[in-house]
Amino acid sequence: MANIAVVLHGPNDLRVESIPVPEIKDNEVLLSMSSVGICGSDLKYWKYGKCGKFSLEKPMIMGHEGSGKVVKVGSGVKHLKIGDRVAIEPGVSCGVCRLCKTGRYNLCPRIFFCATPPDDGNLCRLYKHSAQFCFRLPDHVTDDEGAMLEPLAVAVYSCRKGKVGLGTKLLICGAGPVGILTLMVAKQNGATTVVITDIDETRLALAKSLGADFTIRVSSEKPEQLATNISEILGDHPDVTIECSGTNFGFSTGIYATLPGGCLVMVGRVPGDAEFPLNLAFTKEIDITGVFRYANCYPTALELVSKGVVDVKPLISHRFSLPDSVKAFETASSHDTKAVKVIIECGQN
Amino acid sequence: MANIAVVLHGPNDLRVESIPVPEIKDNEVLLSMSSVGICGSDLKYWKYGKCGKFSLEKPMIMGHEGSGKVVKVGSGVKHLKIGDRVAIEPGVSCGVCRLCKTGRYNLCPRIFFCATPPDDGNLCRLYKHSAQFCFRLPDHVTDDEGAMLEPLAVAVYSCRKGKVGLGTKLLICGAGPVGILTLMVAKQNGATTVVITDIDETRLALAKSLGADFTIRVSSEKPEQLATNISEILGDHPDVTIECSGTNFGFSTGIYATLPGGCLVMVGRVPGDAEFPLNLAFTKEIDITGVFRYANCYPTALELVSKGVVDVKPLISHRFSLPDSVKAFETASSHDTKAVKVIIECGQN
Amino acid sequence: MANIAVVLHGPNDLRVESIPVPEIKDNEVLLSMSSVGICGSDLKYWKYGKCGKFSLEKPMIMGHEGSGKVVKVGSGVKHLKIGDRVAIEPGVSCGVCRLCKTGRYNLCPRIFFCATPPDDGNLCRLYKHSAQFCFRLPDHVTDDEGAMLEPLAVAVYSCRKGKVGLGTKLLICGAGPVGILTLMVAKQNGATTVVITDIDETRLALAKSLGADFTIRVSSEKPEQLATNISEILGDHPDVTIECSGTNFGFSTGIYATLPGGCLVMVGRVPGDAEFPLNLAFTKEIDITGVFRYANCYPTALELVSKGVVDVKPLISHRFSLPDSVKAFETASSHDTKAVKVIIECGQN
Amino acid sequence: MANIAVVLHGPNDLRVESIPVPEIKDNEVLLSMSSVGICGSDLKYWKYGKCGKFSLEKPMIMGHEGSGKVVKVGSGVKHLKIGDRVAIEPGVSCGVCRLCKTGRYNLCPRIFFCATPPDDGNLCRLYKHSAQFCFRLPDHVTDDEGAMLEPLAVAVYSCRKGKVGLGTKLLICGAGPVGILTLMVAKQNGATTVVITDIDETRLALAKSLGADFTIRVSSEKPEQLATNISEILGDHPDVTIECSGTNFGFSTGIYATLPGGCLVMVGRVPGDAEFPLNLAFTKEIDITGVFRYANCYPTALELVSKGVVDVKPLISHRFSLPDSVKAFETASSHDTKAVKVIIECGQN
Repeated sequence: MANIAVVLHGPNDLRVESIPVPEIKDNEVLLSMSSVGICGSDLKYWKYGKCGKFSLEKPMIMGHEGSGKVVKVGSGVKHLKIGDRVAIEPGVSCGVCRLCKTGRYNLCPRIFFCATPPDDGNLCRLYKHSAQFCFRLPDHVTDDEGAMLEPLAVAVYSCRKGKVGLGTKLLICGAGPVGILTLMVAKQNGATTVVITDIDETRLALAKSLGADFTIRVSSEKPEQLATNISEILGDHPDVTIECSGTNFGFSTGIYATLPGGCLVMVGRVPGDAEFPLNLAFTKEIDITGVFRYANCYPTALELVSKGVVDVKPLISHRFSLPDSVKAFETASSHDTKAVKVIIECGQN
Repeated sequence: MANIAVVLHGPNDLRVESIPVPEIKDNEVLLSMSSVGICGSDLKYWKYGKCGKFSLEKPMIMGHEGSGKVVKVGSGVKHLKIGDRVAIEPGVSCGVCRLCKTGRYNLCPRIFFCATPPDDGNLCRLYKHSAQFCFRLPDHVTDDEGAMLEPLAVAVYSCRKGKVGLGTKLLICGAGPVGILTLMVAKQNGATTVVITDIDETRLALAKSLGADFTIRVSSEKPEQLATNISEILGDHPDVTIECSGTNFGFSTGIYATLPGGCLVMVGRVPGDAEFPLNLAFTKEIDITGVFRYANCYPTALELVSKGVVDVKPLISHRFSLPDSVKAFETASSHDTKAVKVIIECGQN
Repeated sequence: MANIAVVLHGPNDLRVESIPVPEIKDNEVLLSMSSVGICGSDLKYWKYGKCGKFSLEKPMIMGHEGSGKVVKVGSGVKHLKIGDRVAIEPGVSCGVCRLCKTGRYNLCPRIFFCATPPDDGNLCRLYKHSAQFCFRLPDHVTDDEGAMLEPLAVAVYSCRKGKVGLGTKLLICGAGPVGILTLMVAKQNGATTVVITDIDETRLALAKSLGADFTIRVSSEKPEQLATNISEILGDHPDVTIECSGTNFGFSTGIYATLPGGCLVMVGRVPGDAEFPLNLAFTKEIDITGVFRYANCYPTALELVSKGVVDVKPLISHRFSLPDSVKAFETASSHDTKAVKVIIECGQN
Repeated sequence: MANIAVVLHGPNDLRVESIPVPEIKDNEVLLSMSSVGICGSDLKYWKYGKCGKFSLEKPMIMGHEGSGKVVKVGSGVKHLKIGDRVAIEPGVSCGVCRLCKTGRYNLCPRIFFCATPPDDGNLCRLYKHSAQFCFRLPDHVTDDEGAMLEPLAVAVYSCRKGKVGLGTKLLICGAGPVGILTLMVAKQNGATTVVITDIDETRLALAKSLGADFTIRVSSEKPEQLATNISEILGDHPDVTIECSGTNFGFSTGIYATLPGGCLVMVGRVPGDAEFPLNLAFTKEIDITGVFRYANCYPTALELVSKGVVDVKPLISHRFSLPDSVKAFETASSHDTKAVKVIIECGQN
């Protein structure tokens, strides 16, 4: 068995190269990778060598939205066998720290997380992972769907943190992959009315076709004005806002729009260098809560896909083979391609 | 305007008789009643003169699942006008006691509740009610649907108390109207797999047609055995059980079946005189929580019906006019009629 | 009976003048006012004619931290009688809107709140109030303590919103009256270690004497540096931060200092015009939650005082009679006086 | 190094005998045991060979309330070194199952738990344990206090599950060690009024001296009557009841006494063969929740002892050396001895 991987050496320096085949421990499995999706954070590392507080300090294998097939099983692994297809939850937490023991393992300070410096990802032929974070896919769930569980887990977590439920009126800022997945999950979670905003008509049209009750194209209005429009459309304030656009505008809009006592979930981050109506948030007692990855969401995401209640396939807009990964990244980062989710097939056939 | 009402004078003594037209206060509306449903508690009062801890001590007007049209509006009422059609939340709480102030107004010790002794209900031509507990129906929501919001509110509240959510595996014991409404609400609330049990094949067939993933006809097996069957069907324990059968068997099954750390919601009451596996519930840390009516559920129930995500109409099996109310009660209480929900039309045409 | 009141006519224009004796409704009581405390928001109205989003638009009677004696009782009032001494919860909510019905009555859009424009306060001889928001004081609880329940209710609410509990390590920014009351409440609520910061040594000394485990005098360090110091002193990050200083510095410090997954409660407001480490808050999943007044906290505050577990008296630094109210405001607003809580006695003796 | 242990071979067959010195793994420490307490479950195994659903099927070393000194450290252990004194959390969970990952590790189906068949306990000279479940004791915390963290953790967990907080009025049924520890923890957690019941005057006197506001000696009254007495004493219903007596009477009393919407925490188990007012619990919407050991409570218990806010020492009534363990068990199980907590010293001096 030979192995190749997509390695980031620095900003705009992505190379497909040979790497060793990993050795597995007793609690691990070796996987022949199937599908790996490209995410916004991947593009940031590729372009700038950093994302948020994490910076590339040595070459790193990309990829954290992956599925694969088990080709070797550690001696202590009971629930998987050779040939099983699995979705890979990319974070492997320590299991014993305070945050792990209280169920918030995404915040574990010792977590390994694929393709977050300095941890290598799974955009390669052969990859090893802790078996406890591999979820067996039923036959009718595809490899692509397995890869898509990763952003879907973010959507599940966002709805949980926002306490989306029966009758929730929901505002989603941003109709990228996570925004649209959040829309689909929220509708399954009882949200009766979802309004989604974006600057891109194509994305809004996709959101509409996947269940959005209302779409709003954002252009030059102010956040207060947009919030007023949203209230008029909904006939009420949204109970919850989930910010997925990563803009100052989205954060401010969420504060203006959300019902007093409601929740504003920050999946995106703010570029900053702006004045936010923070005191309004405090006075309205809007709970502002961040999303950093997810915990305990893969089983739910798999259940949603497996039962057929959330269909992630319409989001996949482009596919490439592993050797064409640079082209895949270029496609994902270009506006002209209208790419939503780009998948890289890691298999050799 | 003349008024007639269906008055219970004692066990098996239900009479249609003239009553005065009510005077309204500033915060009340006078309603020309439209549809009123018959519920299991109504039948208990009719047959035995009591239900749970409440006993008939003087003649009482029946009816608490009702909708009507506004014919007179108190001077302090802002959100309703003559001609509006409304669903009537039958409990009017005091608004100022500790339980009201903390949002648990269904437990208000001073609550007025339709057709619970000594409070009169709304199975009549003309009825007055606190405007704040009347919810305006949009044009496309029918009077029957308005009446059905009452049992639907119970279903909403049960799902909330059980923390049904994304990916919940749910067991419902009992496929009567509340069990079936709970099934429909739970599916909208993210429950991916719902198994429902009953002794009646007809009810199970209806449940199946309305979304149950699995139905189980209960006959002579023991609760432990049934719990094992359920786990085999689900491939896991249910996270939550909602007991709607009002049987000792349902309560015990819930304890045996529910996942450790899960929730057992008691909508039904136990006839008692049985040994229950209570220590098992404590050791498994199953939270046992009762449902007594509902709080803050009418707006949600209306939203679910209005948006078309829950269709209550298939549950309506029979209809009668107000003067035929005794026949309606007989139909609702007979097994031969296969009645699910019996509606009485209170209008005069 | 004659009546006089302390009326704010505009910035720096506070007058003691005659007003009519109020007429009470059935659900109200007339009170002969006893003690009224001066709060930071009172000083803002006095100096600037506004506070937060509220602006003085016509003359307004000041005072919202008050206690009084019942001199007249509405016909519908059951739990109070003439001669009862009461603490006055200054917000009277509508009781019927969505926020009231769900227990969040402090967010009621129709709330009446003493001395918040345009609503008059209770810094006067005779004042009427909804009986349901008057809490009878036991004989051993003084009028001053009754007045102090108001800021104490803020402290109770802040601890609840921050989920302070057994073993909580707590950071409080700001050792003014609310910060110190929060300290005392938190210690009663299981917080084992509380560190409190301020720029004023006198306030910190008071905090120390009232139970603070650690006090830190803030001078010119940066928020990051202060957060590091706090972690060193605690041997850990604080689980919860309650910001009571109303400074940009306090908000930033809270974000840097709080444990991932913890809570940052904003009692203070930020002056703004500063860059905040918001993305760090989102990535650490710190829940940021504002405090706007309180709901359901007066009974608890009274219980804490009545049982003697929280002693509010050491905070009272100055006392004035009603005709000397302008002097009271001057004292409360001057740094030289080292005033903590200034009380105005409204009685005529 | 030689090793001896207290081994239960069957009902009433407890032997002190030689055992091998354990080998440690990388993540484990070897401990020279210091203090081990005897608990009610130990006595049940000793007398009947079983406790709840667990039965002795082969000889088992007793002891699960223990502290010790580190004498050997596994290669992967970072936070402990030779000579450290530690409290031993007796349950070692798998860390990877669904219940562990969601923070409810006490319900882990694969948990190892000291002195629960078939797992050996730590009533011996030398014992090995997972380092992650050993908590280093500061110098001023004694070995006995370290052992007492175990029942104290139960008390912490019970208060958490019952949502005890500021101003809680609490009923505790049963003034044994866990009841009294719960009393002390609840008072630290904001409970302003605690009433505790028992049949034994000596225990009630101890409870009174340790902070109970009211004690009630139970004799022949009915649960309804006792509940009425409690309400009269409190001037209100208790918000929460924590049942620590392990009697049918305690469970029924809790249901009658607890405020509607309150919580009934079952630390004890019911002997059964009795009729319980279950429907009353459901109608009052009392949440009934069991306690099975605890999760994430050792750090809090240690904090409470370390900060001196809970003093567990007054509960220790008797001490024996390891070779005298049979005498220790006899003392703990006899009513004549008035034993509260019996400690066995495992050291060799």
